[in-house]
Amino acid sequence: MYIVPERAIADLMTRDAAFDAVEKVFAAMAAGDAYNFPVVREAIGHEDALYGFKGGFDRAGLSLGLKAGGYWPNNLEKRGLINHQSTVFLFDPDTGKVRAMVGGNLLTALRTAAASSVSIKHLAREDAKVIGMIGAGHQAKFQLRAALEQRDFDKVIGWNLHPEMLLNLEEVATEAGLPFEAVELDGMRAADVIISITSSFDAILKADQVSPGTHIACMGTDTKGKQEVDPQLLVRATVFTDEVAQSTSIGEAQHAVAQGLIGEADVAQLGAVINGAHPGRTSAEQITLFDGTGVGLQDLAVAASVVELAVKKGIAIEVDF
Amino acid sequence: MYIVPERAIADLMTRDAAFDAVEKVFAAMAAGDAYNFPVVREAIGHEDALYGFKGGFDRAGLSLGLKAGGYWPNNLEKRGLINHQSTVFLFDPDTGKVRAMVGGNLLTALRTAAASSVSIKHLAREDAKVIGMIGAGHQAKFQLRAALEQRDFDKVIGWNLHPEMLLNLEEVATEAGLPFEAVELDGMRAADVIISITSSFDAILKADQVSPGTHIACMGTDTKGKQEVDPQLLVRATVFTDEVAQSTSIGEAQHAVAQGLIGEADVAQLGAVINGAHPGRTSAEQITLFDGTGVGLQDLAVAASVVELAVKKGIAIEVDF
Repeated sequence: MYIVPERAIADLMTRDAAFDAVEKVFAAMAAGDAYNFPVVREAIGHEDALYGFKGGFDRAGLSLGLKAGGYWPNNLEKRGLINHQSTVFLFDPDTGKVRAMVGGNLLTALRTAAASSVSIKHLAREDAKVIGMIGAGHQAKFQLRAALEQRDFDKVIGWNLHPEMLLNLEEVATEAGLPFEAVELDGMRAADVIISITSSFDAILKADQVSPGTHIACMGTDTKGKQEVDPQLLVRATVFTDEVAQSTSIGEAQHAVAQGLIGEADVAQLGAVINGAHPGRTSAEQITLFDGTGVGLQDLAVAASVVELAVKKGIAIEVDF
Repeated sequence: MYIVPERAIADLMTRDAAFDAVEKVFAAMAAGDAYNFPVVREAIGHEDALYGFKGGFDRAGLSLGLKAGGYWPNNLEKRGLINHQSTVFLFDPDTGKVRAMVGGNLLTALRTAAASSVSIKHLAREDAKVIGMIGAGHQAKFQLRAALEQRDFDKVIGWNLHPEMLLNLEEVATEAGLPFEAVELDGMRAADVIISITSSFDAILKADQVSPGTHIACMGTDTKGKQEVDPQLLVRATVFTDEVAQSTSIGEAQHAVAQGLIGEADVAQLGAVINGAHPGRTSAEQITLFDGTGVGLQDLAVAASVVELAVKKGIAIEVDF
């Protein structure tokens, strides 16, 4: 079996490889070739930690396994470790033997950024120029970097609850040679693409703060109770997601569905657009919304990709297990 | 992190260590210090495999993690590998970082044998002399070896659907210097302790084939539909288990509960007997029955024990992960 430690991932994994892996597995999910297992998520009553497993099987890509780990809120302060800790384990679907163990921290950031990026490729207007960011934390930088590769953007605008964090976004914009402007939420009307990546429990963005023709990727809502946008926005928009069951139960769509504003049938798989089974965007005025909830298959896909790269470059640690 | 490969387990792990680990974790479960997570179990539609995760957290022993793997029915014939394949992953409950990866195949056999052995220690009559085995496969040998250490047995009797397999039991009896006799099911009336370890889907042993004062450990039923004994035996007996929720849903007690013969309140945790919170056996005539369903915490407990032994002996492979 192969081991790819966390410290090796940054030099191995590229945004391109993460994008390809996530696009392929979304397509496999929509084609019925890949599915996620029930998610286990437990508040273990120790160090306030949330711990669990996200597993799945991709018959097309032959990825089987899980991401295990979670959120340890005291890690940074107590131990200088990052709070999100995860590891991906890949199994050989032919034999059930473990095939690889891969550090999952950076991969999680890359696969989450790749998801919104895939949604932009397939759903944003080709002529999108202004990208708006809601949220400016660590993960927002990954999101913005990946998004900027999908269209010929000429400006970045951003909003954050704590405005001093906006420097994070400005830094990425500057890297890409683009101007950055801090805006109020009303200013998001200027955006052609919006990414929300917060840990909010209340709607931040109102439906009338989004202009016709916008594509919005809601990436922060992955738990019951979390919320980033006005449920009315999901009525106005054509709604896509990674996995419908998660979207309507723990994703951004949970609120619009709970309020009876939309039904499960109003939420389409992004993979269906990739496969050509769903037309996706059909007009320049349409608002498209991607509800990115995060599935185990994404983790398996990027981990499989990084193992392949690590073996090719001779960096993978081989253990006779 | 440490790696203990499958091939290292046989020389490291002892029946004593497995017994102690399982006895402790059963006690922790009954004391409310340890709990199992929901089990994930998936027919993945590839190689007819069943794959899944059994996780848990033991606050007392500080074991956190899961066993991942399952059943690949074509392994032996196609590839010369054993059909049950599993790996245990331990995490540091203080940080969420992976702490160890341990081969889980032999450990699974040892922890399952340890469970019935713990039940014999705490529930069988002290003067038990005859042990009866129902089932004579690979796992039955582990069961019998562990059981023989708990009482001063002077005879082994056995029954199996395919009698030629009984040589397995005779071999273990001979190892221990004990006579072995193949019997019909009626012959089980001579047994003071009975272990059933089959993959049966129908009751094998009738209630009137068990004598007063017997302790019986039903170790084969771990899935909806499986069954080893007459549900009336659970009415006659005082019923114990590793985990009540599993016992009444996928364990041997599922049938008696489904037929309304007993209720959930009639099934006690073996750990409560270990802790002294339940009196256990209270008379020489009482029939005690242990429904061993198998929980993730057992796997974590024996894996933690083997990692400790491997580190002490310098056999664990250390990887900077």
